[in-house]
Amino acid sequence: MVRAIDGGVMGEAALTAEELQRRLSAEFSEAFHGESGLLIEKVWHGGCRVRLGFNAKTLRPGGTISGPTMMMLADVTMYVAILASIGWEPLAVTTNLNMNFLRKPAPGKALVAECKLIKLGKRLAVGDVAIRSEDEEEMVAHATSTYSIPPANRQVDTGIITPKL
Amino acid sequence: MVRAIDGGVMGEAALTAEELQRRLSAEFSEAFHGESGLLIEKVWHGGCRVRLGFNAKTLRPGGTISGPTMMMLADVTMYVAILASIGWEPLAVTTNLNMNFLRKPAPGKALVAECKLIKLGKRLAVGDVAIRSEDEEEMVAHATSTYSIPPANRQVDTGIITPKL
Amino acid sequence: MVRAIDGGVMGEAALTAEELQRRLSAEFSEAFHGESGLLIEKVWHGGCRVRLGFNAKTLRPGGTISGPTMMMLADVTMYVAILASIGWEPLAVTTNLNMNFLRKPAPGKALVAECKLIKLGKRLAVGDVAIRSEDEEEMVAHATSTYSIPPANRQVDTGIITPKL
Amino acid sequence: MVRAIDGGVMGEAALTAEELQRRLSAEFSEAFHGESGLLIEKVWHGGCRVRLGFNAKTLRPGGTISGPTMMMLADVTMYVAILASIGWEPLAVTTNLNMNFLRKPAPGKALVAECKLIKLGKRLAVGDVAIRSEDEEEMVAHATSTYSIPPANRQVDTGIITPKL
Repeated sequence: MVRAIDGGVMGEAALTAEELQRRLSAEFSEAFHGESGLLIEKVWHGGCRVRLGFNAKTLRPGGTISGPTMMMLADVTMYVAILASIGWEPLAVTTNLNMNFLRKPAPGKALVAECKLIKLGKRLAVGDVAIRSEDEEEMVAHATSTYSIPPANRQVDTGIITPKL
Repeated sequence: MVRAIDGGVMGEAALTAEELQRRLSAEFSEAFHGESGLLIEKVWHGGCRVRLGFNAKTLRPGGTISGPTMMMLADVTMYVAILASIGWEPLAVTTNLNMNFLRKPAPGKALVAECKLIKLGKRLAVGDVAIRSEDEEEMVAHATSTYSIPPANRQVDTGIITPKL
Repeated sequence: MVRAIDGGVMGEAALTAEELQRRLSAEFSEAFHGESGLLIEKVWHGGCRVRLGFNAKTLRPGGTISGPTMMMLADVTMYVAILASIGWEPLAVTTNLNMNFLRKPAPGKALVAECKLIKLGKRLAVGDVAIRSEDEEEMVAHATSTYSIPPANRQVDTGIITPKL
Repeated sequence: MVRAIDGGVMGEAALTAEELQRRLSAEFSEAFHGESGLLIEKVWHGGCRVRLGFNAKTLRPGGTISGPTMMMLADVTMYVAILASIGWEPLAVTTNLNMNFLRKPAPGKALVAECKLIKLGKRLAVGDVAIRSEDEEEMVAHATSTYSIPPANRQVDTGIITPKL
């Protein structure tokens, strides 16, 4: 058990960041490959942090990173948080994702997404994802998402504790 | 300036909790009235905490508090956070509210909602609202909401700092 | 089987509008009562239309109808569409509601909400709700919502057909 | 003016499907290229239809098309509907996208997305996007999205008429 930055307790993950990086790179080789790819920086029971390297191809008119790039990052980060919490369950699928785009990302920087699960039930997991430009304080985008967990791997409610704001 | 629970900095509010309670009670007398009404517990620049007393009338089949009651609480809490941050601007209006219902609230308890603005721009404010049963740790519901701020009172981006998760 | 306005086929409802009005009035007497209350105008397999009479108490500064009033109407309309489609299952509960507020309603008019289910599965139902001022063409608000259906009453996917736009 | 499938009136678009395809292919060459790319099939004032060819690379475990692929399609379709309605305004940006994933797409088929704007204001446009497997009736996913329109090109509310359900 280690203390989270915000005072909550971070339990141990079911799979390490390295193991998840290895398995997801095998499934989604392009997305998890290289300097401009996805890197799982940290995982814990109930959350994770994922980095997406800067890639000029994801820019759109006005110099901002495209919405779909950030939605992909939010969705993957949520998926990683669930796998880190319940173990390898690749058939978990998104049922809802709601995203707010808040500010233009800092030019030329990687994006860093942090996910915190706010419910981890038998059938559904709900999480909150904050995306920032690397080393910046303000969020560039924020997502809330629900995943459906397939029956085989359903757990009892594991009591994710969501520290007060 | 005071330290927030999660390590962020809470700036001073434009209006106190008492002043907001007084003015909103005048506009919405029923909702802000009495033991089972809304009570603004605390405000700061960029957020607030609002309590809704328990009211058996808001129960629905199964013993849970009705969805609309929690949506009303989320919407009011977002409104209070904006007024506390930019001053009295009653014409600020909701443009979007997305709400996830996570667990059944604890029986017979008040609900407490905490709002944290994640963007406070000239035209739009976006916030995050966590609702819990009083003195409980787990969220019963979570909302994300956008308000439109009318032109007369538009501010420059006031740089809400959103502490890392 | 009757033809829907938009060319889709409306199957027969499991419960009539009158029966649902009677049962929901018993559960939620205030909300379904009188000229300014909720009236279930029409139901079919996969959808319904619900009217909310005008009530000056629901106005907020600027003369618009309050957001929570419209969220309540969207949530009830979704609930009625589900009950009309699967039969009396009062324990169906909202898991997500996303609402966009589009325009100020016409002054002094009732609101009319139409719900169309876009998924009616064993565990989850998803629907789309359009709210208009009575006899007006433009939407004042639009919601998408997910309900969880309790196990006892779960159906196989009943194949709601969603007519092309 | 031509009659829409659902009885609404479709006004003339500000730009043709061919012109939009040509311009967007220049901006986003990979996405709009080839058999497995995006093809703008049809546009009108207030909406459009966009096809995404099948691409085995977008499959994920379980044989479904990945969530981010469908979110990209929804976002582009909304963008095309706005450009078709107000003219070439590449700096229009997404502020919110809410997506529900409903069913597994039909194997090996293209996806077809139809967008209908439900508000086209001076500053904000809101639309509804339905995604289906080509030639199938049931939706596989549904999105609601808001775009911010930059000041230079702001129009008065152009009175999109949203036909009753």
